[in-house]
Amino acid sequence: MLSFVSDLRLVDHHCHGVLRDDVDRAGFEGMLTEADRTSPLGTSLFDSSIGLAVRRWCSPVLDLPPHAPADEYLARRRSLGAADVNRAFLMAADVDTYLVDGGLSPDLLLDHRELAAVTGAVSFEVVRLEYLAEQVVSAGCTASGFADAVRARLDSSTAVGAKSIAAYRVGLALRPERPTAKEVADAAGRWLASGGRCADEVLTRFLVWEALDRRLPVQFHVGYGDSDADLHRCDPLLLTDLLRATAGLGVPIMLLHNYPFHRNAGYLAQVFPHVFVDLGLTTHNVGHQASRLLAEALEIVPFGKFLFSTDAYGLAELYHLGVLLFRRALSDFLTAAMASGDVVEADAIRIAHLIGYENARRAYRLD
Amino acid sequence: MLSFVSDLRLVDHHCHGVLRDDVDRAGFEGMLTEADRTSPLGTSLFDSSIGLAVRRWCSPVLDLPPHAPADEYLARRRSLGAADVNRAFLMAADVDTYLVDGGLSPDLLLDHRELAAVTGAVSFEVVRLEYLAEQVVSAGCTASGFADAVRARLDSSTAVGAKSIAAYRVGLALRPERPTAKEVADAAGRWLASGGRCADEVLTRFLVWEALDRRLPVQFHVGYGDSDADLHRCDPLLLTDLLRATAGLGVPIMLLHNYPFHRNAGYLAQVFPHVFVDLGLTTHNVGHQASRLLAEALEIVPFGKFLFSTDAYGLAELYHLGVLLFRRALSDFLTAAMASGDVVEADAIRIAHLIGYENARRAYRLD
Amino acid sequence: MLSFVSDLRLVDHHCHGVLRDDVDRAGFEGMLTEADRTSPLGTSLFDSSIGLAVRRWCSPVLDLPPHAPADEYLARRRSLGAADVNRAFLMAADVDTYLVDGGLSPDLLLDHRELAAVTGAVSFEVVRLEYLAEQVVSAGCTASGFADAVRARLDSSTAVGAKSIAAYRVGLALRPERPTAKEVADAAGRWLASGGRCADEVLTRFLVWEALDRRLPVQFHVGYGDSDADLHRCDPLLLTDLLRATAGLGVPIMLLHNYPFHRNAGYLAQVFPHVFVDLGLTTHNVGHQASRLLAEALEIVPFGKFLFSTDAYGLAELYHLGVLLFRRALSDFLTAAMASGDVVEADAIRIAHLIGYENARRAYRLD
Repeated sequence: MLSFVSDLRLVDHHCHGVLRDDVDRAGFEGMLTEADRTSPLGTSLFDSSIGLAVRRWCSPVLDLPPHAPADEYLARRRSLGAADVNRAFLMAADVDTYLVDGGLSPDLLLDHRELAAVTGAVSFEVVRLEYLAEQVVSAGCTASGFADAVRARLDSSTAVGAKSIAAYRVGLALRPERPTAKEVADAAGRWLASGGRCADEVLTRFLVWEALDRRLPVQFHVGYGDSDADLHRCDPLLLTDLLRATAGLGVPIMLLHNYPFHRNAGYLAQVFPHVFVDLGLTTHNVGHQASRLLAEALEIVPFGKFLFSTDAYGLAELYHLGVLLFRRALSDFLTAAMASGDVVEADAIRIAHLIGYENARRAYRLD
Repeated sequence: MLSFVSDLRLVDHHCHGVLRDDVDRAGFEGMLTEADRTSPLGTSLFDSSIGLAVRRWCSPVLDLPPHAPADEYLARRRSLGAADVNRAFLMAADVDTYLVDGGLSPDLLLDHRELAAVTGAVSFEVVRLEYLAEQVVSAGCTASGFADAVRARLDSSTAVGAKSIAAYRVGLALRPERPTAKEVADAAGRWLASGGRCADEVLTRFLVWEALDRRLPVQFHVGYGDSDADLHRCDPLLLTDLLRATAGLGVPIMLLHNYPFHRNAGYLAQVFPHVFVDLGLTTHNVGHQASRLLAEALEIVPFGKFLFSTDAYGLAELYHLGVLLFRRALSDFLTAAMASGDVVEADAIRIAHLIGYENARRAYRLD
Repeated sequence: MLSFVSDLRLVDHHCHGVLRDDVDRAGFEGMLTEADRTSPLGTSLFDSSIGLAVRRWCSPVLDLPPHAPADEYLARRRSLGAADVNRAFLMAADVDTYLVDGGLSPDLLLDHRELAAVTGAVSFEVVRLEYLAEQVVSAGCTASGFADAVRARLDSSTAVGAKSIAAYRVGLALRPERPTAKEVADAAGRWLASGGRCADEVLTRFLVWEALDRRLPVQFHVGYGDSDADLHRCDPLLLTDLLRATAGLGVPIMLLHNYPFHRNAGYLAQVFPHVFVDLGLTTHNVGHQASRLLAEALEIVPFGKFLFSTDAYGLAELYHLGVLLFRRALSDFLTAAMASGDVVEADAIRIAHLIGYENARRAYRLD
């Protein structure tokens, strides 16, 4: 691996917390991929690209030989306990700065400060918009008071960015206009009457516009996720109207994950001034094939618009793999380009720094 | 090629019969790709990836040097006659077990028993649902009797799986619910009044649910096919609602072919417990580029959910090429992963066995 | 590079004119990719695949060392002046025959004759249908006279093909039928009343059918373009109904650019007798990654249906890069296929000639 890539400082601009407690085999397999659980019709989820990557790359971190069998690996993991496992993988990952979406299963996971404390890293919060709205409703509000209650929470937030899971809840075909006060109150009223999760197109748009008003970069889950999502409603191209409407604000919009729509995402990052993309989640899920995916993702996206993230969630292994497979893929990309004479080393170094941390620092104004 | 891949036992879980009689050049070219015939605006269909593959790999099977010119190849083929040509290629393909969809042009093709008899292979029937429905109508039935007539045929079938060409007839955006008896009778009535092929969304869903009731794995044509299909209605993601509705039944759903939506299909196989995928038809159509396609198809699909098939139809060459190019692609995939240290040989062998035959045997309960 | 590829005669079946005058840095960056301008949130557009390609491959043409810094490159460019720069790159590109869409910013660009005169090449005009319609309206016409005025202009045109930017104006989901005279007059009336650009689905279809009546091959912008387009309305599969309706006419339809839908386009070229595809615009935008894209584009398209184009516009560099990166990608494709024994040299040469110029000469009847 290129030394300037193996040493590259990293801002992980989108991840979640790591599990506080131990997990059994079923739980481990259930968090390994986007499947809920191992299927009785299939075989173990270790029989997958990411399963192979865990056995190869994570075994040595737990002082096992590479490619240890799954049972042996899980036994070793249990014998060490969650705290030691977390420390081992987070130290191996060696991320400089975490931006943490803490709104998914907060009870089970370390929060952003606890995560960072494991390795002495820096961390920032990313506020999950749908979770914030649900907190507003849980705390008690009226339909007409919903909007101001959301605003108050956003105003008091110390988050450096916002995150929307519109893809899971209403799809990405959001209308472009900021909803009116009446539309928001009406939608809130419907939600208060029906209960359930925040899954309303008007409210989603309201949340996004409010975040943009506060100059918070807005992250969108895009593409690949679990079976809750209708993937055909998760193509980033469906965001085009909203991107066009918000292009003039000068506030970044971050398209996360993007597989298998990563080329579509790259197009949006090229033509819209405020769009950035990453390849989080994908990188560790495709395991040893990550190099090809990163190369595809970098076809037309400006290098100043591509970010690093892991989207790691729960399993400490995913932080390590997200980093390691990314470094390997970036090194492969730059090594090939230098070998063919298409990039000189000084440019390769600059591109690595942009992608590893400079773009994130600039876009989120972390300094 | 890796010896454990060149020797790998194969269950071809989706193919058709081979032509009983000889074929002229126009007929040969018309069956080589998904084009109906050679276009006067283009050139020979031998000028394509599959055409190059025929000349390279099929010529030696007919005792010609590799890369024999098309005319020479076809002359040799004619001089041997259909029976010898079929035997030569099916012996070269060396498939252990065929699952044969016999519902397309049955008069022209060997049926599944005849196909298997050529080489002493084992064969099973896959019942083509739309063809079964058309047979019910041809045999004479009433609108209210249609459903039971379908059920009777399914009950007496010895098929190990069912196949739907919804993609060609109504698109894959099937609604998830099982249609009611009244809806089925009404739809059957409309069809009986209008005539033509089975091309009704309600009837398609009825057929699929009836097959699932009998625990028959249901194969769907997905993606790439001839110009009869509207490819934008053949994206497997359009099946999401139906897949969600049937996930709890424990009966496999097989997504066939999938090009160019193979990544979408792999996602479905990861997140839905009953979804399996293959790369049939694609493999021989892309010829020497099959290795890249197989690698893409294996990015996120669990190795326990990927099946081998040729989708060979009519031309004996397609059985040979479907097998050979698949073996070559699988060997390339595993060789590269072993060379980079990402997979050890024991795992590579296990993955090959899963994909070659174990997954099919388990999913179709062939033992 | 293979000598028969570096020497290959080329018909560029779709490009625009080159800039008549000099351009400053902002203007240069704005024409380099499909972004309107450099984003203050990103970095220079030289930080992209095409930016690296300019610095590597274009610097030596201006007598700078490869990989000259952007400022140095632009200073050298300015010191030479537009005429010298144009000549240097067009000579380096060495295109035999240009087919030029002159309907975009004609005031700023050399027309097809002027372009060809720079190097002594041959040139033909491709008439841009929406621009022709706008000229008809500018010249003054009535709603009922619109159709005949269009016909008169087409009849007097010396163009060898027509071009539609339906993708930008109305999307590619065109209905298949030829519109009636009344529908055209009504649509023209609405347009005359409202003003603006030609952006009406009925008029677009009318223009396309009129071009086909005159046996003019019709080029469609497909896929990737600037932020004016809704890329999800630019998938070539949306043209399926129109392609089916026009398949019997024997007049070619050319799908241009196609990224990231190049596999979908290849499918259409295989199954419809009159569909041809290219990879213009994409080739230079993806820079050193063009080889993978060309390989993907050639998976299932018959080699007799794939055309060369640059889609170069404005910057002289784009003609050079479009040619050079295409030659490099084609050479890589054929070299790999020969190395693995999948293609013999005589076939590789024939495929190169088909793609480089024979297909274009046949489809546009240039002889």
